[in-house]
Amino acid sequence: IVPIEWKDGKLRWIDVTSLPWEERYVESSDIYRVAEAIKRLEIRGAPAIGVTTALAVAMVAYNSPNNKDEMMKNIEKAVEILSHTRPTAYNLFWALNIMKKTFYESIDLSPQEIKEKLLSKALKIQIEDIKNNLKMGEIGEKLIQDGDTILTHCNTGSLATAGHGTALGVIKTAWKNGKKIKVIATETRPLLQGARLTAWELKKEGIPFKLITDNMVGIVMMKEMVHKVFVGADRILRTGHVINKIGTYGIAVLASYHKIPFYAVAPTSTFDLTTSPEDVIIENRDESEVTTVLNKLRIAPEGTSAYNFAFDMTPPELVSGIVTEKGIVEKDYESNIKKLFE
Amino acid sequence: IVPIEWKDGKLRWIDVTSLPWEERYVESSDIYRVAEAIKRLEIRGAPAIGVTTALAVAMVAYNSPNNKDEMMKNIEKAVEILSHTRPTAYNLFWALNIMKKTFYESIDLSPQEIKEKLLSKALKIQIEDIKNNLKMGEIGEKLIQDGDTILTHCNTGSLATAGHGTALGVIKTAWKNGKKIKVIATETRPLLQGARLTAWELKKEGIPFKLITDNMVGIVMMKEMVHKVFVGADRILRTGHVINKIGTYGIAVLASYHKIPFYAVAPTSTFDLTTSPEDVIIENRDESEVTTVLNKLRIAPEGTSAYNFAFDMTPPELVSGIVTEKGIVEKDYESNIKKLFE
Repeated sequence: IVPIEWKDGKLRWIDVTSLPWEERYVESSDIYRVAEAIKRLEIRGAPAIGVTTALAVAMVAYNSPNNKDEMMKNIEKAVEILSHTRPTAYNLFWALNIMKKTFYESIDLSPQEIKEKLLSKALKIQIEDIKNNLKMGEIGEKLIQDGDTILTHCNTGSLATAGHGTALGVIKTAWKNGKKIKVIATETRPLLQGARLTAWELKKEGIPFKLITDNMVGIVMMKEMVHKVFVGADRILRTGHVINKIGTYGIAVLASYHKIPFYAVAPTSTFDLTTSPEDVIIENRDESEVTTVLNKLRIAPEGTSAYNFAFDMTPPELVSGIVTEKGIVEKDYESNIKKLFE
Repeated sequence: IVPIEWKDGKLRWIDVTSLPWEERYVESSDIYRVAEAIKRLEIRGAPAIGVTTALAVAMVAYNSPNNKDEMMKNIEKAVEILSHTRPTAYNLFWALNIMKKTFYESIDLSPQEIKEKLLSKALKIQIEDIKNNLKMGEIGEKLIQDGDTILTHCNTGSLATAGHGTALGVIKTAWKNGKKIKVIATETRPLLQGARLTAWELKKEGIPFKLITDNMVGIVMMKEMVHKVFVGADRILRTGHVINKIGTYGIAVLASYHKIPFYAVAPTSTFDLTTSPEDVIIENRDESEVTTVLNKLRIAPEGTSAYNFAFDMTPPELVSGIVTEKGIVEKDYESNIKKLFE
């Protein structure tokens, strides 16, 4: 599965909101349409968002006239539009910064050369993401024993990245390396990425799994049915705080209570070394995501108001380790994360 | 709202599976239909199940010919059918035992007198449940301060009892006594009793509330948005273990982690003084409840397998107190619960 592709001046992506009912692909060269796809979660998962925004900036340059002023205006506008799609996923800002830097470093080249530079940088970001995922898979799978049951949350597979996946990538690598593992996947309300996407990927891989509602994490841990937890991340701070899909924090507290190892898996492009825990913006999404199921079924009386925090923050003391493409980071996070970037 | 009513030899109940979309009432004098209503969760909530089974036994006797042998056969059959509807809710077995005892104690009376005895006993159970709920409301609301935000799980209101409610009854009493409280209600997957029923009751009462998905409990506690947790119970053991709707245990662990008081509210008819924690039967319900939403919307790929534990067990060390109609039970539970029944 390649969730996002460069198609000669256009982007082509699988609209994951249509899964598992239908495999629907969308093609567009319109930056507003790409931004909408990110906002609507047709494309989601921090690494996939990062790759998409890089490709989108390259696309805007590619389709600009061979006039640097106009190209610059288009790129600045694209960066502006994309930066307002989703506030929490760090890879988005990481990718936008790289693309802007690449543009301004190439400013003395010809328009055609600038287009090529931007496109090759964006494609490199995409390829690097897959490579990093495969590397994290091999590094992380060493934490998994034959026979383990792994609990995972949300979707962190091919559909959340440029390919393979982060936490789900580790699970896939363990399976491919012959470890007889089982997975427990949380459905992940409100948008059910676990039930819709993780179940879909695990089925394709042939990895045995059971789906649970989010509120069954406690009982499966109490019954000693879970050996390890692997989750992804939308942003990791220099302090080791892991910002990830809503519900991650509750799972981490339960894992700690049951002395079950809890690992986050994320490439270094997810690490935000400047923001403090108290300054992280947690995206609030529309109440209708909670009062309905996928806007297909209303489940609460008319007029019901809801909170809809899309992410939460797990403090470092609950995290057993962070798997990156550069190795596993353990406590003390503040100093070990610093080393990772030296 | 009266969820279940005696109607001259028939039972009439509101089918809560139709809420909040429709207020559908069902009338039947068929014991199989009543048993089906309990299995299908048209009638649910441990106290409501207890009241229903008592009325159902009275109904079977009432509609029997004036022949003691036949009446006995019918009652024994009804008890047998009802006892196999749901394994976890203790009030069901409590009510069946009372009704059987009442029958055998009246065995020397005339058939007509036996019918009257059974009916008056069942109606007494129903009235006592409402009275107990009102009492628990007054006792429990003293734990609530003006301005508190209370988190509650599942539905424990009028629709789960003979009227008023247990945990939601405490919340209603606090509100009626003028305390300006707010409620955070968990949606309670898989069957969404929080989103469908608690939201419906809170709206009717005019109590301000917000709905959350089950996996948002962590973040609202971390953000210090919750002052106290009140939940109901399907069975409470002599050790103080609280068996309640799936997800309760996870909420209790999170409440303890955040030092937020966690109270269970249940009448003494919910207390099971004989079963040990390791012997409690946790009902496993059909996987389709998890792989779909209310059988209206499939959310996981075809062939997805799921766990569906309907309840979990919260150990006494996580419980700040148990509100009963006889007062608030605190640690040490084993000895204090014993005193409650002396």
